[in-house]
Amino acid sequence: MERREYLQIPGPTNVPNRILRTLSMPLINHRGPEFEKLLTNCVDGLKKIFRTNNDILMFPSSGSGALESAIVNLFSPGDTIVTACHGLFSERVALIAERYRVNTIKIQKEWGEVVKVEDIETVLKQDVEKKIKAVCLPQNETTSGIVNDIETVGKMMKESGHPALLIVDVVSSLACLPFETDAWGVDVAITASQKGFMLPPGLSIIAISERAWKLSEESKLPKWYWDYKAVRAKMEQKQLPYTPPTTLLFGLKESLDIIEEEGLENVWTRHAIMAEATRNSITAMGLTLFSEVGYQSDTVTAINMPDGIKFEEFSTILREKYGVVIGGGLQQLQGKIFRIGHLGSVHKLDIYAVMGAIEMSLFELGYKIELGTASKAVAGTFLKYSF
Amino acid sequence: MERREYLQIPGPTNVPNRILRTLSMPLINHRGPEFEKLLTNCVDGLKKIFRTNNDILMFPSSGSGALESAIVNLFSPGDTIVTACHGLFSERVALIAERYRVNTIKIQKEWGEVVKVEDIETVLKQDVEKKIKAVCLPQNETTSGIVNDIETVGKMMKESGHPALLIVDVVSSLACLPFETDAWGVDVAITASQKGFMLPPGLSIIAISERAWKLSEESKLPKWYWDYKAVRAKMEQKQLPYTPPTTLLFGLKESLDIIEEEGLENVWTRHAIMAEATRNSITAMGLTLFSEVGYQSDTVTAINMPDGIKFEEFSTILREKYGVVIGGGLQQLQGKIFRIGHLGSVHKLDIYAVMGAIEMSLFELGYKIELGTASKAVAGTFLKYSF
Repeated sequence: MERREYLQIPGPTNVPNRILRTLSMPLINHRGPEFEKLLTNCVDGLKKIFRTNNDILMFPSSGSGALESAIVNLFSPGDTIVTACHGLFSERVALIAERYRVNTIKIQKEWGEVVKVEDIETVLKQDVEKKIKAVCLPQNETTSGIVNDIETVGKMMKESGHPALLIVDVVSSLACLPFETDAWGVDVAITASQKGFMLPPGLSIIAISERAWKLSEESKLPKWYWDYKAVRAKMEQKQLPYTPPTTLLFGLKESLDIIEEEGLENVWTRHAIMAEATRNSITAMGLTLFSEVGYQSDTVTAINMPDGIKFEEFSTILREKYGVVIGGGLQQLQGKIFRIGHLGSVHKLDIYAVMGAIEMSLFELGYKIELGTASKAVAGTFLKYSF
Repeated sequence: MERREYLQIPGPTNVPNRILRTLSMPLINHRGPEFEKLLTNCVDGLKKIFRTNNDILMFPSSGSGALESAIVNLFSPGDTIVTACHGLFSERVALIAERYRVNTIKIQKEWGEVVKVEDIETVLKQDVEKKIKAVCLPQNETTSGIVNDIETVGKMMKESGHPALLIVDVVSSLACLPFETDAWGVDVAITASQKGFMLPPGLSIIAISERAWKLSEESKLPKWYWDYKAVRAKMEQKQLPYTPPTTLLFGLKESLDIIEEEGLENVWTRHAIMAEATRNSITAMGLTLFSEVGYQSDTVTAINMPDGIKFEEFSTILREKYGVVIGGGLQQLQGKIFRIGHLGSVHKLDIYAVMGAIEMSLFELGYKIELGTASKAVAGTFLKYSF
């Protein structure tokens, strides 16, 4: 059946038609003048989204590749870094670091809890020799739907006088949640195309500070594809060192235009309202939120599976009968939670429809609920705001 | 803002992405072998939708052009035809006929009422000399959201022994409502691309019976572009006499595939359920249906504007805040009704979202309603059916 589909996993996200159209443009020479202009436009636009004057680098890769790039460019075997560990993606950074014999001090939390500024502060204070090279954490932990307070972490680190870099995974938060690379003192911010930028996967993007460039001078880890210096040198010539995913850059330019037309701060506000409507609707239906209160993500909501409902059955009804695709729990959370992505091109009627589909699917599975409950909460939220 | 838009006027309808993609295919030679194959596939598929073995003709034109084509091909000045007159589109047939000095016996009804089989039977019985050449009526009067019972009209005409042709405008009903060209004895069935076929406007399609071909032999009205014989002759060679809208034929082929995959009878059922959900939601909100009870259309619902709500304000909120575009009342119904199109590519969450947007917009305009009412009625309807 050809109907509207709702890809409500926490990324890849729905690609708007306007971007889909640019993705079907004929290819251009990636060593020619049109590409130079395209890349320049993209980099200029990206700086506005990252809120930075730092260098912007790009890789034909997924976000995980860009995480690895930060490790291999900044550190040497035997170096020590602090890593938040409270979800699949934050723990992946520790995994990569260890693969390269970089030592990790893990701030381990239950999945669903945030890493607090005090947790990091304690570790840095104990490091009297200032051996720690960097603190790595995600702004948004996609696994569990929580948001770490990067602004406060950045402020604390600046005030602490500790030289560690602040490396932040903003894959599932950039262009969705408020984020300020420069004002918050983020040295390396890493994202990818398939979330807030509403693009297909395949392009990763990194903003890198002067302090990070300096540290990279000391790095002894081997690299070729991920070599930041080579990428910077080529990007100064408005090219990439290897074949770039040109089509994704067409799409990125369109995405940046779409975001600029709406206004970045309006995009942030929209995400906050969509998330609020989602949470209100979820709790109105008698379901419970999985994530730590006060830190729930505005890009993905994690919900405890209600008793007696199996994720497989629930998600199958949603997909087959309504065209709504949601995320399940990963690893130890499999079967225990479900996740609704509401990032990127997600607007009022999308949330309205998706929450309706969730209500109807739960109803069909015998969950006790009065029909109309989900949408009443969504509508009540939207009508508080004049947009 | 780049969001999903809901084009809920009673046509042109939302074009599914799968069709949009075919519309961007490079053009082909309309006098070459690829076109021959394309046209053959389209004609074969159209016969299944019209449920006919009659000839299929096509014009690069809107549906109104095809209505004119029927008049100029079948009649002569001074001929007499019966025309249903109960909405803008049915009355247009009389207007065209009179422009060509064809006499019309008008069965005039209030807009919103149907033409009953008895109305037509009475006129035919009075015509003892059997001068009436044809009876013209729409299956679905888009203006007012009512459906005439073509099956019963066809049966009555067959049994009456009167030789008048049955000419039916199925522009806003084919591939949406049950329709049987051959079984119901329809001599000329006229439709266009932008409704049930989910295509952009620009292509009209006609199914014409042997009886109609015979009558056309006697026609003395001048024609060139609309000349059925010329079109038939060229279509036998798998071409059109003039430049065809090739891109729309790419789209039509895709549309026919989409309909075949879902199954035509499933498409009919889906339209019936979407319409039922719409009506249930409308009445649950305390609004009233404009059209004659028992004959309400399953492709477009006409609703009386509630007291104190202005159509312009209401439709502006719907469009600007939710991306939902509805139809207003035409001519004497302007400001008195609004119309929701639910034909073509319209699925469960579309209706759910559109009715939600209507509820929220009415609420914002001060209409007294408990939020959640619209969606409760929609969900209650859908959950009666296992699809």
